[in-house]
Amino acid sequence: MRIGMLGTGMVGQTLASKLASLGHDVFMGAREADNERARKWVEKTGGTAQRGTFAGAAHYGEVLFNCTLGAASLDALEQAGAEHLEGKVLVDVSNPLDFSKGMPPSLFVSNDDSLAEQLQRAYPKARVVKALNTINAGVMVDPGRIADGEHATFLSGNDSDAKEIVRGILASFGWKQIIDLGDVTSARGSEMYLPLWVRMWGALGDANFNIKIVRS
Amino acid sequence: MRIGMLGTGMVGQTLASKLASLGHDVFMGAREADNERARKWVEKTGGTAQRGTFAGAAHYGEVLFNCTLGAASLDALEQAGAEHLEGKVLVDVSNPLDFSKGMPPSLFVSNDDSLAEQLQRAYPKARVVKALNTINAGVMVDPGRIADGEHATFLSGNDSDAKEIVRGILASFGWKQIIDLGDVTSARGSEMYLPLWVRMWGALGDANFNIKIVRS
Repeated sequence: MRIGMLGTGMVGQTLASKLASLGHDVFMGAREADNERARKWVEKTGGTAQRGTFAGAAHYGEVLFNCTLGAASLDALEQAGAEHLEGKVLVDVSNPLDFSKGMPPSLFVSNDDSLAEQLQRAYPKARVVKALNTINAGVMVDPGRIADGEHATFLSGNDSDAKEIVRGILASFGWKQIIDLGDVTSARGSEMYLPLWVRMWGALGDANFNIKIVRS
Repeated sequence: MRIGMLGTGMVGQTLASKLASLGHDVFMGAREADNERARKWVEKTGGTAQRGTFAGAAHYGEVLFNCTLGAASLDALEQAGAEHLEGKVLVDVSNPLDFSKGMPPSLFVSNDDSLAEQLQRAYPKARVVKALNTINAGVMVDPGRIADGEHATFLSGNDSDAKEIVRGILASFGWKQIIDLGDVTSARGSEMYLPLWVRMWGALGDANFNIKIVRS
């Protein structure tokens, strides 16, 4: 598939590398066309991947990954351009983390709204799927390093076909417990989990963990 | 131990029955001294347990369980009386669920505060420990019904000795993955997990589940 990445940070690079290794055609999009991290990342892939602006990535991709910081996501999508988001599967990996009062962060949107809903409202023709926002980057692309991949990742979105496409990508990463939480409003659940994730990270002393759903 | 229960609902009754079955001396406290559910519950125990007001329960117990609805908890503690809460371990099982806009609920306090913190601030001499608020009542007292008890429950509180007392009670229920998240502010994490719990409940169609922490 043609994949457009929005965001060149740790999460964007890790996902981009995994997707490229699985044979997808990846376009790394940044705020500026000559982004240093995007250039180095493309060099690492042997020059087979492409790079450019958010608009370039959004235009190129059939599936887009929003890996920008939550506080910058709406602005990044504006730069990507509504015309390039129309009909696209937009995997929203971001979290509405507010670090303005230090650690641990709070959320700048929660309870009766979520960042995923804000993105969906701003770009109603994009097919937003909240996913992968509840684990650290290394675990996202290599779930098998923990419990043979038998642990939880979540999907939220209004478009069932888009969720099935994302489910297929997650399964190709090795995810075995992929839970469809419901429509885009259910992203409130996975986003509001972040404060617990941060506290567990502190208690465990290591971000290489996840939660597995166990049942009677 | 002498246990004072605050709240006669499903959670209060289930915990009270488990604690009595383990040999603890349980006092079931309600808003009114002649509460019907408390009377029936005491009858079921063969009359060995006691019952009365919130103040009676708080006076009696060394360890108190707040099992009232989140929205009613501060009022219940006011009825219990500051003089009866002083020095007591107060296990806060409640959640700040706001059902005023229907299902799914949102939280009436979150992000930069939590219900556990509100209770601790209102009664600074109580030893508040947030616990057991992340699972349904049946799982609380019978964790072994799922994954042999190897799944997660959380502690938050400022008093280490109080947390160790609660850890011992949870271990006696069969809990094997008891995670100390930190001071009382870490209750924001376990309380903000509730919206995800509610969505997982919907997706799984059954409240008999929990999360297990898995690590690499």
